Amino acid sequence: MRIALDAMGGDFAPAVNIDGAIEALQMLPEIEIALVGDRTVLDPMLARSGYSGERLVIVHAEGHVGMDEKPTDALRKKPDCSIARCWKMMAGKEVDALVSAGNTGGVVAAGLWTKLFLKDVKRPGIAVILPASHGKTVLMDVGANPGARPEHLAQYAIMGNVFAREVLGIASPRVGLMNIGSEDGKGNDTVREAHQLIIAGAARPNYIGNVEGRDVFNGSVDVVICEGFLGNVVLKVSEGMASMMMRTLADTVTSALQDERHLAISAFQQAGKTFEYNEVGGAPLLGIDGICMISHGSSDARSIRNALKTAVTLKDRGVNQKITQALGASAEAVAP
Amino acid sequence: MRIALDAMGGDFAPAVNIDGAIEALQMLPEIEIALVGDRTVLDPMLARSGYSGERLVIVHAEGHVGMDEKPTDALRKKPDCSIARCWKMMAGKEVDALVSAGNTGGVVAAGLWTKLFLKDVKRPGIAVILPASHGKTVLMDVGANPGARPEHLAQYAIMGNVFAREVLGIASPRVGLMNIGSEDGKGNDTVREAHQLIIAGAARPNYIGNVEGRDVFNGSVDVVICEGFLGNVVLKVSEGMASMMMRTLADTVTSALQDERHLAISAFQQAGKTFEYNEVGGAPLLGIDGICMISHGSSDARSIRNALKTAVTLKDRGVNQKITQALGASAEAVAP
Repeated sequence: MRIALDAMGGDFAPAVNIDGAIEALQMLPEIEIALVGDRTVLDPMLARSGYSGERLVIVHAEGHVGMDEKPTDALRKKPDCSIARCWKMMAGKEVDALVSAGNTGGVVAAGLWTKLFLKDVKRPGIAVILPASHGKTVLMDVGANPGARPEHLAQYAIMGNVFAREVLGIASPRVGLMNIGSEDGKGNDTVREAHQLIIAGAARPNYIGNVEGRDVFNGSVDVVICEGFLGNVVLKVSEGMASMMMRTLADTVTSALQDERHLAISAFQQAGKTFEYNEVGGAPLLGIDGICMISHGSSDARSIRNALKTAVTLKDRGVNQKITQALGASAEAVAP
Repeated sequence: MRIALDAMGGDFAPAVNIDGAIEALQMLPEIEIALVGDRTVLDPMLARSGYSGERLVIVHAEGHVGMDEKPTDALRKKPDCSIARCWKMMAGKEVDALVSAGNTGGVVAAGLWTKLFLKDVKRPGIAVILPASHGKTVLMDVGANPGARPEHLAQYAIMGNVFAREVLGIASPRVGLMNIGSEDGKGNDTVREAHQLIIAGAARPNYIGNVEGRDVFNGSVDVVICEGFLGNVVLKVSEGMASMMMRTLADTVTSALQDERHLAISAFQQAGKTFEYNEVGGAPLLGIDGICMISHGSSDARSIRNALKTAVTLKDRGVNQKITQALGASAEAVAP
């Protein structure tokens, strides 16, 4: 399996990207990695890393989309930047997957331009994993498709269901639709229509209906579907709340202690890692004919390694084939 | 000042409502309270409470909107229920304010039916106070107006600004618009249009532009404006995340300790209170010609007391007059 890694994407690129790639190569003998980015920067760094195998090659790209750049502008100005090159390699079947910790809007925009969608997919969506009291909850979409239409949400229900089953290993994921109340008929036109379409589609057996914001974390649902504007806000609200609470609670509790303060500090640090970190290493853009893993901008080498590993899992578990099958079955079910 | 208290609203009604009312009467000599609800239930409870003054009267109402009832159905079936009666009293100028910890949808629906809006207000909205690293952030609207139009959001910017200044005492509140990126032009049509309208209106001097989900908690904004579907999800996501984190962190940290475990437990309990609780006692429905305080369903006597107290503050600070002035100034500014 060949994977293109956007060497220039992320707050700590390219150093952690190179380290993560080397770790992944050691762990996963079946992969080869194309390190995509500025050769003049990458060549000396790779030489210094001490890596001497042949499964890691550098593919040159001119520039990259900065974390604060407007994605569409940047892609127009730098058509051969690192993330655009990754997508071209996937479109040309030179690689099976791409991984980037760069500007999320840039990763998505470059992907949408290739139109490299799976059969029957109307719009790809990002599925992110959030910590929950029972383990994990998948939230989809978190920003690839702001203003998603009902038929997009219905497809996300199907894609999120397959992802949770195949990658998180939840045998029968409970799929819910984000709404402002659990009763039928709640919410706006988009969610009411999406509700009907999900019931008519392949995710129906696992669909538990409307869920509310608090259900994301309380263990009552495994996959929460929403349009991208809402999902993006929910994701960032969760991150912001988690960070504020960690800081406030750690301050309050450790300052109440004396002799055992050091024990509390290390317990907080440990717990913080479980909130901030997931072993999947990023979020897949599902619905793509190929594999696209988007990692957090603040990714370290371990996150990059895990994102590469998850790309392998997505391929090994045949997630795309299973999505296509389920979408096909849904299309038949709703055909007149 | 006369206040109608929905005696039947809330998970612990009417007991905590009566206790909260009596506490408020002791604290606030200028108020009289109409306890609105089933006289056959309230009469003996009030007798048992030992309250003997004349500033607390019972006003009979038939039934109430249950916490899980569909508000519009319940209000049709029970047109003289406790919350409907509260609103009728406010519409008839028998009271200056109402307070309810009942079904939020019921409180809002009964209010919208009275059409008791302040001059120039297109749609009322609920302003809730969330904990943040710098103190507090106002989030508006959290569900009174799902699918708010741009002109509604622009009015919320003005109302939220007045509320934060007059009730939270923030001299010059920073007002932001919830979006999925901070740059101009981000987001959907509604927020882009709202952005232009806010710039043209009375909240402009305090408007800092687009903010993101994480800004709600990090101290970079005092008032966050959003449409009601989004705000409702954000509020419930925050509640759910806070509850999950409190539980997980308390478990992890206290189980790492020995002799000082009891100190950590009480520090967690103390911190939990600051997250779950606010001294305002509820959230105002702003834009009403009158005062409507909506308290959490799980309110205790202290929350009810504080909501009654905040109703007094809203009147004393002339929040409605200031909203009307600011809306009038905005209407002139944008007039052709």
